[in-house]
Amino acid sequence: AKAFKVAVLPGDGIGPEVMAEALRVLDAVETKYDVKFERTHANVGGAGIDNEGKALPETTINICKAADAILFGSVGGPKWETLPPDEQPERGALLPLRKIFGLYANLRPAIIFPSLTGASSLKEEVIAGGFNVLVVRELTGGIYFSQPKGIEGQGRDRIGIDTMKYSVPEIERITHVAFQAARKRSKKVCSIDKANVLSSSVLWREVVTGIGKEYPDVELTHMYVDNGAMQLVRWPKQFDVLLCENMFGDILSDEAAMLTGSLGMLPSASLAEGTFGMYEPSGGSAPDIAGQGIANPIAQILSAGMMLRYSFGLVEAADAIDKAVAKVLDQGYRTRDIYQKKDGEKLVNTSEMGKAIIAAL
Amino acid sequence: AKAFKVAVLPGDGIGPEVMAEALRVLDAVETKYDVKFERTHANVGGAGIDNEGKALPETTINICKAADAILFGSVGGPKWETLPPDEQPERGALLPLRKIFGLYANLRPAIIFPSLTGASSLKEEVIAGGFNVLVVRELTGGIYFSQPKGIEGQGRDRIGIDTMKYSVPEIERITHVAFQAARKRSKKVCSIDKANVLSSSVLWREVVTGIGKEYPDVELTHMYVDNGAMQLVRWPKQFDVLLCENMFGDILSDEAAMLTGSLGMLPSASLAEGTFGMYEPSGGSAPDIAGQGIANPIAQILSAGMMLRYSFGLVEAADAIDKAVAKVLDQGYRTRDIYQKKDGEKLVNTSEMGKAIIAAL
Ligand SMILES: CC(C)[C@H](C(=O)O)[C@@H](O)C(=O)O
Ligand SMILES: CC(C)[C@H](C(=O)O)[C@@H](O)C(=O)O
Repeated sequence: AKAFKVAVLPGDGIGPEVMAEALRVLDAVETKYDVKFERTHANVGGAGIDNEGKALPETTINICKAADAILFGSVGGPKWETLPPDEQPERGALLPLRKIFGLYANLRPAIIFPSLTGASSLKEEVIAGGFNVLVVRELTGGIYFSQPKGIEGQGRDRIGIDTMKYSVPEIERITHVAFQAARKRSKKVCSIDKANVLSSSVLWREVVTGIGKEYPDVELTHMYVDNGAMQLVRWPKQFDVLLCENMFGDILSDEAAMLTGSLGMLPSASLAEGTFGMYEPSGGSAPDIAGQGIANPIAQILSAGMMLRYSFGLVEAADAIDKAVAKVLDQGYRTRDIYQKKDGEKLVNTSEMGKAIIAAL
Repeated sequence: AKAFKVAVLPGDGIGPEVMAEALRVLDAVETKYDVKFERTHANVGGAGIDNEGKALPETTINICKAADAILFGSVGGPKWETLPPDEQPERGALLPLRKIFGLYANLRPAIIFPSLTGASSLKEEVIAGGFNVLVVRELTGGIYFSQPKGIEGQGRDRIGIDTMKYSVPEIERITHVAFQAARKRSKKVCSIDKANVLSSSVLWREVVTGIGKEYPDVELTHMYVDNGAMQLVRWPKQFDVLLCENMFGDILSDEAAMLTGSLGMLPSASLAEGTFGMYEPSGGSAPDIAGQGIANPIAQILSAGMMLRYSFGLVEAADAIDKAVAKVLDQGYRTRDIYQKKDGEKLVNTSEMGKAIIAAL
């Protein structure tokens, strides 16, 4: 059997609960597809701070380095919110992981399942039939990582400084990811920038336009980020792939995710060059419901599915997971976050949802 | 009679049509309140380019300098879209106007009138009873204006660079504007930043927190911009005043405006220290419907109302305009953009709407 090494980083809050279900799904895939997932667990986020003194301990980094992919739960919670930002679970774990492993391409699907349109805060007529937007976000450049960055001066003379830089190769590689993804979807890329104000966006738009010529089968449009934030609300179905620099992607992917109304359903992938990647739910650690066994494990399970697809090339197994999730939703299985008290719905807890998905596999 | 000097910059597209109605409303205010508005017209945007070779001609700057306030229409259109960004109507006129006149405080109300909830793409249950969010956006600092900014290098070695800087005094003065505004509203300020990633946001949050102590009667909360983009969609009624740096304010104010479903209704003010200000509709120049006499003049009329309130201290007249607009909406007057084919609605054109508002004054 083919074997893949997975670094398992459950993290905080509901992370360990939903991770347990994703791991059971991996067990089922092992049996069915004659593959092996060798898993090593490691601490991250608040669990890293509490057990090893840091949000991203050295041991964890080494376990990730030895792996073919990282399956990530979620991090953060009120317990660690008073730490300095650099040391907090989210920032202290996620940003270094992205940088160390060169995870430059963040894929964030915002999918509204036709059976779940009721959960969206958008009107039925705006989202009838669902929508499916893929945000492709640049993840290791721009204002997140460029220098200079810091606070200079003293007292009232202090100045806070951040820098947004993009080089041509940085823009090129993320643009290719967006176009390649669009080819497997509805063949439309809308590139988001603020080229009427930002120089980095002027370069962004020029480079994206150039790369676009290599993909004559894909339609390319450009939109300012402020208009993008409006158009998502007005008519999300107009979009297929949204190509964004780091910060615009942070904002618009969250807006798009919330428009679906079911954050607990959305997976994400952060890819390096080659096949290495990190996979995590788009939602947070939901400390308010942690430990109750009621969290929705679907985002974590779909994240495992993305890992099979993008890092391991197990397309058939990945498709099977996606289909199993769609099937249990059609069968009416609902965790509390997506339960709408409609006829035919069955309210289930975390492990019941996991079992239903495995049964459907 | 007290006299005020107004620089009237109608601009492009529907700008001149809706401006004509706003000026008729000013006529009516002159009669009723024994004041005088001395108006000087000037070219701006595409009209500036076509007539004087620049989006913001010198003559226009001088007319504005001689005025007590600027009443601005809207600029831009397909005719000028192929010009370099710096010379285009929007950027070439708006950014220099903001800088030259020190218009650091941008007030952008996103109000959904109870009678117009149907126009929003949000569900009835999310917006029942309407909502009223005021975005207070810093307008002369941050990534829009800080140096270094530009594209360096040649060919594939080029790097696009922007800088986001904020000083303590810059943050302090916009924070005071937000708290003062909140005092006249529901006494809540939510400050938007990205303090988990940006150094300028770390300083922003610290300074806002400090100023907040001077307003113990106003509740202050902080929210990351990505979460802000989500929360606006999920439950806009949770917000009263949103305090934002320049770019976050650009994005969130447009998102909030679109959530109301009636961009043609929303005014804005851009204020300098002292009483000088520029007043303009939040929507664009709508070239697709320009010249047909069907545009909604309400945003322009409410912008004139904000001018009376903030620059001229004519609070009574400003209140009267706001009330007149609410009244004609209650009476069922609707321009095409807000017409929902409901019982009791009367479809009217631009000048009929203007007349109805004047009659209600
Ligand atoms: C926690 C934070 C640093 C992070 C980001 O801004 O990238 C998060 O919001 C995300 O989108 O993954
Ligand atoms: C036209 C553009 C420069 C401007 C901005 O980004 O500020 C516009 O979007 C706005 O919000 O007034």
